[in-house]
Amino acid sequence: MGNNFLQELIIPAQTKIAMIIMDGLGGLPLEPGGKTELETAHTPNLDALAEKSALGLTVPVSPGITPGSGPGHLAIFGYDPLHYEVGRGVLEALGTDFDMGPNDVAARGNFCSIDASGLLTDRRAGRIPTELNRELAALLQTIKIDCVEFFIQTIKEHRFAFVMRGPGLGDALTETDPQTIGVPPLPVRPLNLDSEKAALIVDQFIQQARTLLANKHPANMILLRGFAKYPKLPSFNELYGLRSAAIAVNGMYRGVAKLAGMQLLKVEGDTPADEFTTLEKSWKDYDFFYLHIKKTDTCGESGDFTGKVRAIEEVDALMPCLMALHPDVVIVTGDHSSPALLKSHSWHPVPALLFSRYVRADGIPEFGERACSRGSLGVIPAKDMMPIAMANALRLAKYGA
Amino acid sequence: MGNNFLQELIIPAQTKIAMIIMDGLGGLPLEPGGKTELETAHTPNLDALAEKSALGLTVPVSPGITPGSGPGHLAIFGYDPLHYEVGRGVLEALGTDFDMGPNDVAARGNFCSIDASGLLTDRRAGRIPTELNRELAALLQTIKIDCVEFFIQTIKEHRFAFVMRGPGLGDALTETDPQTIGVPPLPVRPLNLDSEKAALIVDQFIQQARTLLANKHPANMILLRGFAKYPKLPSFNELYGLRSAAIAVNGMYRGVAKLAGMQLLKVEGDTPADEFTTLEKSWKDYDFFYLHIKKTDTCGESGDFTGKVRAIEEVDALMPCLMALHPDVVIVTGDHSSPALLKSHSWHPVPALLFSRYVRADGIPEFGERACSRGSLGVIPAKDMMPIAMANALRLAKYGA
Repeated sequence: MGNNFLQELIIPAQTKIAMIIMDGLGGLPLEPGGKTELETAHTPNLDALAEKSALGLTVPVSPGITPGSGPGHLAIFGYDPLHYEVGRGVLEALGTDFDMGPNDVAARGNFCSIDASGLLTDRRAGRIPTELNRELAALLQTIKIDCVEFFIQTIKEHRFAFVMRGPGLGDALTETDPQTIGVPPLPVRPLNLDSEKAALIVDQFIQQARTLLANKHPANMILLRGFAKYPKLPSFNELYGLRSAAIAVNGMYRGVAKLAGMQLLKVEGDTPADEFTTLEKSWKDYDFFYLHIKKTDTCGESGDFTGKVRAIEEVDALMPCLMALHPDVVIVTGDHSSPALLKSHSWHPVPALLFSRYVRADGIPEFGERACSRGSLGVIPAKDMMPIAMANALRLAKYGA
Repeated sequence: MGNNFLQELIIPAQTKIAMIIMDGLGGLPLEPGGKTELETAHTPNLDALAEKSALGLTVPVSPGITPGSGPGHLAIFGYDPLHYEVGRGVLEALGTDFDMGPNDVAARGNFCSIDASGLLTDRRAGRIPTELNRELAALLQTIKIDCVEFFIQTIKEHRFAFVMRGPGLGDALTETDPQTIGVPPLPVRPLNLDSEKAALIVDQFIQQARTLLANKHPANMILLRGFAKYPKLPSFNELYGLRSAAIAVNGMYRGVAKLAGMQLLKVEGDTPADEFTTLEKSWKDYDFFYLHIKKTDTCGESGDFTGKVRAIEEVDALMPCLMALHPDVVIVTGDHSSPALLKSHSWHPVPALLFSRYVRADGIPEFGERACSRGSLGVIPAKDMMPIAMANALRLAKYGA
């Protein structure tokens, strides 16, 4: 990623950078010729900021590629998402504030329902209450196999994070979720020699879990997928010489920030307003703030165009709280696009706004996909945003004589 | 840099390319919402040319990176500045028209003043007259150590270029300038094993210099910094199949052109008008002209917004001299930005104009940062400009069948 070269240019400064990530921000018009979610939203504060900013579009992974949340976030944090891979299991485990280590293999777990013949009847065990999940997780936590430790972290409803810790565990394992009902869970299979031991252990774990849960219908079985080891990611704070803090209420986004070595801040409540309040309270203690808004993506993925518009407007209304802190650099963008039209993540470049006293402002008084496509940042790899933000924060020295 | 692939496509042609580099051209408005230096300047000739040109913004090194003059120039000449490094000492030495070779290590030298206890009292020796510098340089030239040759080239006032020539000399050496007064000059230290011999020799040289200069106060000592070997740079003429000429009055810019293997033309006088006169006179003898304007950068670095505006207007007024020669391709850009607001080089992309009979003209009748951000060249690496210029000069054959 060439970041060693960047690291050598870092100079100390007192400036502060705020990065507001509206998850899945980029959108599409519902009808050809119409407006996107962002273009539809009434965003007087973002529009006013846009006029004083440089606008552009970011490409998280590479052109045409629809990113998952992991790659999308790595990119906007400045890591090449094709170089650094973060498994979903790892994000899930880190999201529970679990301390993963280099000998750990994590996976996403579901409690599920099977019938007397062992065929799946519900992949989500009727979305059992989170409290029951905690009880059952404690039960699974009693499983002991050889020299391997297990950690079962309740997430919510039927979901949990599964971590096994021990020497010589590979993570090239197939998932046990057949993604359909009426069939038995799949056996876990190793995809390379290094993962054979792990496969055997996961297999034993699942058998013991099935025995322990036998009379716990509807949660009488488990499914595991997204097996992944803890990736070695250079520290964000070391890469950029920043004291960084993450403000996110959803597990996975807390996970990816933790992976980058950011300090996870405690948010009282779970609304965007609560997140901005956390930002205000911690403002003096850090140089860089990553603030994550989930609702834009949730609405995009469920096809709720209007909900996404409202979610954007909610963030717009909070922007004055941020600007009152006089940040030196503000980035507003997303980790990827999630158009309601597609009800999913998409490959579309993501609108991005970069504000600072030293930005060459485009004078475009609108924050929207088409406005951004006319901006002077151009269409750039998302991973270029951090160096540009660092420059605008006057935190990079001249390269070469 | 992938230039081998380009080299294979080169076809002979009679076309001529002129590259006008206004050093530090890119700027910023002094007040938010205002105009940059280039946008403020009255530039009827450049505006008329812009309308018939493709406009864009060039990124010299990579996004967010503020380039020194060396990397900025290498990039616009088509060399990847992250691959080719040119030390300041080398640029200084080459700027004196000194013929550096592969066994040479160069440095920037200052005459300075020390008191009886050897503490620095003036890092620039009261900016002694250039004539005195010449006398003292001749004195230093008498120093002989082992099998090493020394070359001391007067630049002006207190400044000189230092070159040592001999086998086995590394350039990983610390500078002797403590950048402050009241302390002694620093000893030179080797940063790797290959540079230990060079460190010993520099140390002996400095001791002998101190003895020779003992009664020459205020110039009774020297400081050396920016040690660097001659980099191996592929020849510009071979890369592009061009007979190239450089028109620059300042040492360092002559240096970098020489490094690329361009023919340095003698300029009678030192104004932009003198440079354009040189261009006219040599027009028939070369295919490619690099013409460097220093004043835009000098004004930018000293915070002189109006001076930079005037410097741009001075170039604008000279553009008809160039256009009267009917160049096939004209590039007008900078090696980096130097906004008066920042009083320094900056990371901002550089406005660029590319004119030819075959360019897809944007029809934007203005040469300025925001006009260029709307241009069809987009925001591109500076090193891409030369291939585009070559194409527009009809000097590149088709790639592939």
